[in-house]
Amino acid sequence: MSNHTKAALLLALGAALWAAAPAQAQTPPREVPAKKLTVPGDVSPDMAKLIANPPAPFWNTDPKTPTEWKDWVNQRAQVSIGIARDAAAKFGVKYEKITLGGVPAYMVTPREVAPSNRNRLLFHVHGGGYVLSPGEAALTEAINMAYYGSYRVVSVDYRMPPDAPYPAAMDDATAAWKAAIKMAKPKNMAVFGTSTGGGMTLALILRAKKEKLPLPAAIAPGTPWSDLAEIGDSYITNEFVDNVLVSWKGWLGRAALLYANGLDLKDPMLSPIYGDMHGFPPAILTTGTRDLFLSNTVRTHRKLRQAGVEADLNVYEGQSHAQYGAIPAAPETKEAFTDIARFFDKHLGK
Amino acid sequence: MSNHTKAALLLALGAALWAAAPAQAQTPPREVPAKKLTVPGDVSPDMAKLIANPPAPFWNTDPKTPTEWKDWVNQRAQVSIGIARDAAAKFGVKYEKITLGGVPAYMVTPREVAPSNRNRLLFHVHGGGYVLSPGEAALTEAINMAYYGSYRVVSVDYRMPPDAPYPAAMDDATAAWKAAIKMAKPKNMAVFGTSTGGGMTLALILRAKKEKLPLPAAIAPGTPWSDLAEIGDSYITNEFVDNVLVSWKGWLGRAALLYANGLDLKDPMLSPIYGDMHGFPPAILTTGTRDLFLSNTVRTHRKLRQAGVEADLNVYEGQSHAQYGAIPAAPETKEAFTDIARFFDKHLGK
Repeated sequence: MSNHTKAALLLALGAALWAAAPAQAQTPPREVPAKKLTVPGDVSPDMAKLIANPPAPFWNTDPKTPTEWKDWVNQRAQVSIGIARDAAAKFGVKYEKITLGGVPAYMVTPREVAPSNRNRLLFHVHGGGYVLSPGEAALTEAINMAYYGSYRVVSVDYRMPPDAPYPAAMDDATAAWKAAIKMAKPKNMAVFGTSTGGGMTLALILRAKKEKLPLPAAIAPGTPWSDLAEIGDSYITNEFVDNVLVSWKGWLGRAALLYANGLDLKDPMLSPIYGDMHGFPPAILTTGTRDLFLSNTVRTHRKLRQAGVEADLNVYEGQSHAQYGAIPAAPETKEAFTDIARFFDKHLGK
Repeated sequence: MSNHTKAALLLALGAALWAAAPAQAQTPPREVPAKKLTVPGDVSPDMAKLIANPPAPFWNTDPKTPTEWKDWVNQRAQVSIGIARDAAAKFGVKYEKITLGGVPAYMVTPREVAPSNRNRLLFHVHGGGYVLSPGEAALTEAINMAYYGSYRVVSVDYRMPPDAPYPAAMDDATAAWKAAIKMAKPKNMAVFGTSTGGGMTLALILRAKKEKLPLPAAIAPGTPWSDLAEIGDSYITNEFVDNVLVSWKGWLGRAALLYANGLDLKDPMLSPIYGDMHGFPPAILTTGTRDLFLSNTVRTHRKLRQAGVEADLNVYEGQSHAQYGAIPAAPETKEAFTDIARFFDKHLGK
């Protein structure tokens, strides 16, 4: 055998062994070297600004008392309220406080409701890790949806920790849903929300199935917090890549434990990825390549498909968690909410 | 003003400044620390083995001469041929050499063609970075598709560098397509392929549009090499995370330049992401969260949607490049190819 042939055989053997390498149990974790991220070219200038941001300076906030949690929540809320008010003014969207089944909520109304949407109503469950975005601070996403989709939207201001851990948020969302389905036919309705709002959208469907309540005609769980524990590949692969949530090991994981209040994080009401998704309405999901919740989103997508549910996945270039709605006038925000609106239009009755 | 209020204002100001941080031009690249990857839990044992693999030892292969390229290609081919033969034996799929428009090809036939597929034919364009997988080495994917979808498949054994750079591969694919559309009605046909095969699938539609050839009824560009240059966020974010391709800076980028042979990598025939996708057939796309081509895939998905094309994105948990087809009997392979078959069934005539 020539040296050349021997070398070829050895290489082929090496490759064959590589292809048959043993699994996790037998192998140590694999090291990925440090790297430098730049802003990808194929995004709008607005999105490039968001992507260029350093990791959120507050990602590792560690409130020690209920008062410290509330102070931090209030600080963050001031920023969010400013964005919501700017968006409402720019888009000509109005909102007013209402109550839905005894739960505080908002009615969000665009300048014009599209003729085909007159008998339709969207139900919004806001995000914020089960602790952030009380009241008006929650409304930017509802405003984006009302504007880009020409829909009326109700947005639920559910109770949150530290005052009210699980099941308060889900009790409120369920009570509000029961009231909302008297305002429109459920088959003319959709439920949507991002992050915690996406997780709650999924949990609300699980709960509605259990309580035999009518389901909406479609859902849009955006980058849903479907696994509250640090389970899912992108919790690691996108750690410190995502500049919004940054890591589960910061305020996010602390908020998960605060909300769960000692319950098993694998309870489907907390982590709906573990629920039975058969019979779910058609779903449109949205995330980004840098999103800490990329795995939460794609695992949910596959789980829905495995359960025979129509599910439409959308992943945006370079975006970290929930950046598809962060700048209301950005082209990517328009694109994402227009796609969701189109999906709703296809599935909702009139 | 109390210290508490001052602190709150400063924090809010910091957050507001963070939200408005300047874009790339003004900011240095952002450092992501080294990290350790483990195998995610939500995958099959077969897939866990693939995910646990170290980076492919041959990722940085650097052949200096045509002979060195061919030797390496032949070594890799021995491994691929073994996998293809095993799959064919296990699945009861037969294949035979044919020619299509003068181009060598294979006819791949499952044990049973589904009754609804009797007048249908799939057209397969293999992957391998424009250099790998000549002849039989290309057939695993065609065998997976024939088996899981119960379809007849033709697979094109197009010419490759170092002997034949662009446009040889596309000329061959086009000649074969012209012959294949005499074997079945184009509206009963789909074109599919992974990686380079996904990029060539897209380029073939661009070329067919240009030459006014009939288009297929659907396409499945799996993790398509839609941007041949190192452009796209996941070329960086998933560098050394993906254990199959590992980095553009290894054999992959060298193969790109070998194939392009001095042409501009932004030519849509080389990088179809820059082509006009209006009028494309419905498309189903598949990738994984660790895929070096995650951005190639999601950018293509969005570009198709922006052009008004129905496009269905599927992203698998923890998978690196093209791992959805690497182990023919893995549950994830079954799931991916069954989903693609279902998509074809929905769109193809009978």
